[in-house]
Amino acid sequence: MAEGFEVTPWKVEGKIDYDVFARQAGIRPIDDGLKERIKRITGDLHFMLRRNIYYAHRELNWLLDEYEKGNKFYLYTGIAPSGSMTIGHLIPFVFAQWLQEKFDAEIYIQIPDEEKFLAKKGLTLEGIHQLAYEDALDILALGFKKGKTKIFFDTDYAGHLYRHAVRVAKRLTFSSVKDAFGMTNEANIGWIFYTSMQAVPAFLKSVEENRNVPCLIPLAIDQDVHFRLARDVVEKLGYYKPSIIHAKFLPALSGASKMSASDKSETIYIEDDHAAVEKKIGRAFTGQQATAELQKRYGGDVDKCVVCQYYRFFFEQDDRKLESIFHAERSGTMLAGEHKAHLAKTINAYLDDLRKKREYYRDRLDDYIVRD
Amino acid sequence: MAEGFEVTPWKVEGKIDYDVFARQAGIRPIDDGLKERIKRITGDLHFMLRRNIYYAHRELNWLLDEYEKGNKFYLYTGIAPSGSMTIGHLIPFVFAQWLQEKFDAEIYIQIPDEEKFLAKKGLTLEGIHQLAYEDALDILALGFKKGKTKIFFDTDYAGHLYRHAVRVAKRLTFSSVKDAFGMTNEANIGWIFYTSMQAVPAFLKSVEENRNVPCLIPLAIDQDVHFRLARDVVEKLGYYKPSIIHAKFLPALSGASKMSASDKSETIYIEDDHAAVEKKIGRAFTGQQATAELQKRYGGDVDKCVVCQYYRFFFEQDDRKLESIFHAERSGTMLAGEHKAHLAKTINAYLDDLRKKREYYRDRLDDYIVRD
Repeated sequence: MAEGFEVTPWKVEGKIDYDVFARQAGIRPIDDGLKERIKRITGDLHFMLRRNIYYAHRELNWLLDEYEKGNKFYLYTGIAPSGSMTIGHLIPFVFAQWLQEKFDAEIYIQIPDEEKFLAKKGLTLEGIHQLAYEDALDILALGFKKGKTKIFFDTDYAGHLYRHAVRVAKRLTFSSVKDAFGMTNEANIGWIFYTSMQAVPAFLKSVEENRNVPCLIPLAIDQDVHFRLARDVVEKLGYYKPSIIHAKFLPALSGASKMSASDKSETIYIEDDHAAVEKKIGRAFTGQQATAELQKRYGGDVDKCVVCQYYRFFFEQDDRKLESIFHAERSGTMLAGEHKAHLAKTINAYLDDLRKKREYYRDRLDDYIVRD
Repeated sequence: MAEGFEVTPWKVEGKIDYDVFARQAGIRPIDDGLKERIKRITGDLHFMLRRNIYYAHRELNWLLDEYEKGNKFYLYTGIAPSGSMTIGHLIPFVFAQWLQEKFDAEIYIQIPDEEKFLAKKGLTLEGIHQLAYEDALDILALGFKKGKTKIFFDTDYAGHLYRHAVRVAKRLTFSSVKDAFGMTNEANIGWIFYTSMQAVPAFLKSVEENRNVPCLIPLAIDQDVHFRLARDVVEKLGYYKPSIIHAKFLPALSGASKMSASDKSETIYIEDDHAAVEKKIGRAFTGQQATAELQKRYGGDVDKCVVCQYYRFFFEQDDRKLESIFHAERSGTMLAGEHKAHLAKTINAYLDDLRKKREYYRDRLDDYIVRD
């Protein structure tokens, strides 16, 4: 943690400096010119782009060049199940759904049910496989298009994935994987191999169509390392390097850099009921002054206030309304209790709606999930 | 090579001392008592058992105990394709076919088309996949039973294998695999993972039948290391440890310990034509004396004479006839030229027959090959 933080797919520690991360990873900031270009093409700019939640990229300009030449891209993203999905997990999918709509793109959604099994203790493959179905419902509830959306669980789709994963794997040494992920020689051989399974969907459509199809991967920054390894390999195999667009993490309720699925009190799960959300948000960090009087005098810091950040990341998509929430926080006119009660109500309404929508898909999973 | 030889699945070097290998690997010799027991059950003793070509085992007595209690076992063996099969490659299959017949056993034959691709340079997966079909024909030509024989190529059967391979892989660290196979940190991550794919068929039938089914693996000693790693893991997963029966290597034509598929002049391939076999056998090492006169006076050494050993390993199954060949060699009455001409003729007749039989299966592969 030379920079005071550490980010790998399996561990996020410290206070992340997103600019430092971008420099270290060699990823480019999404500047105003690029935002303008996206807006010109799509007629719109997703709030996560406007607010620099999606803040960096790899070769997005090239991807848009291809798009404007008529060479459409497909999307690829995913989630490794280990328990109920959190609000933070939804971010790449909310954004991917917007991309699908605006670019009329097909999407491949990988649910690597073996990943957490291999990387963590105490999980069974059968248990994770069951969770994978629940994750698929949460994802579909966001409104992905039928006929343009393929979801696959690695263990059920290995017949399609493994033959290509070995082609990637042949070009990755243990040394390189060890360094990239911070593994030791005591890492298990499945976990070591896993990154090559995650690489495959980045060129699978090119394989299937027997022509080169550009690919865009929306992801949170902790997943970038997989593709830092794989992009060169994918190119050596004769396919386009995937383009990537990188999100920041939704903060934990404590204010820590990342909402973690494994810390139950710091995290809001899609399955949390109203009382649980109220309780958790009630304890969220706001950084407000010690008394109402002091808060009114000095105001709060929206960057540190988790409640403000939850509005920014997810629960207030209208910039003007967000600004008025920020103004109330800065000016000290909105006190923590009221602020939190309103957010809890907003979250509960969102989750109620999502949970209702997800049930619609329970009997329709076969329209989306592909198997060997 | 502390003992003057080295045996791994990817490299065999030096003059192998099979007793030393057995002690190091912790495998038990097949003693007369065990041979008697097999003969009592099967009514017969395969010449490879009589001649100590299959010479060692792991828990074969336990397997026979189970068999005699009515708990039948299945067989598992395989071959990693990298070119035309050699005579040496046939040994485990010839023996397995006998076991299938005598014990009325099902057999799973794994053709790991990714193995050599991962472990060697200069091979394409597509090329190996094509060779795999040719290997399947060679194997079927030996007479395996329809309805009791499943052949699978790893890349076409990964949907069945990968989900269980990760369960094995989770319990194997890179350290242990590195030590067992003599890898370095520069080994590629597919090759590192591969051993877990080879482990799966040793308990796959138990998974499929949802009950514990004993498994017997006939193999050449270089493959034992995979199961030295996997047997404990298989037991921890709740299945019987597979029993193993170990073969020595057919010597190279030069007299070296192992006929290698990659040394074309030292090896007889199933596809070799008559002239090629005659030429190669003509150059085989016999160790005979410098002149016919000296040979008649001093005789030859059947243990060193490759021609004698080829009869012993494969081409003379009748012990009395073999003894008369050996006697002629020892007494110096059979000179190298005559000796070799007769062996070449025998080999060519065998290969002609095998090549004829294999074509019968070309349109019948689907009766044996299973896919995802």
